[in-house]
Amino acid sequence: MRKVTVFITLKQGVLDPQGKAIQTSLHSLGYQEVQEARVGKYMELQVEDGPDLEARVKEMCDKLLANPVIEDYRFDVEEAVRS
Amino acid sequence: MRKVTVFITLKQGVLDPQGKAIQTSLHSLGYQEVQEARVGKYMELQVEDGPDLEARVKEMCDKLLANPVIEDYRFDVEEAVRS
Repeated sequence: MRKVTVFITLKQGVLDPQGKAIQTSLHSLGYQEVQEARVGKYMELQVEDGPDLEARVKEMCDKLLANPVIEDYRFDVEEAVRS
Repeated sequence: MRKVTVFITLKQGVLDPQGKAIQTSLHSLGYQEVQEARVGKYMELQVEDGPDLEARVKEMCDKLLANPVIEDYRFDVEEAVRS
């Protein structure tokens, strides 16, 4: 079993209203030092190992997990830790 | 300037309907090897450096960024890369 961690972020230049709202809220809480906030998605997948695991994860991202028009993605594959 | 990366995940045992939906969709696309999917948030903050940066980021997470009842968080602090 493998643990695949997927990081999905908005492409540079894409407006991030959620990030803007978080930055404004942090400022109102007194954390003026925050200059920018960008929000993305973080997924942990438990995937049975296979010969073309990385290629299939890339397909999963392209087809479903990330929106290729406005999002970038990257992923890490590691040995799953039995919890 | 520092780049702070925050990872927010649901606590173990907390139901993850979004993750379940993603797993079901991946199965319907033919990716049966996905045994579990859990979805979280990923934030990138650009923060002006300061003596108590880590303590203040922890406060930001406790007060706003993460819901302490159902979410865990961790964060990394690194030198910001001028983009």
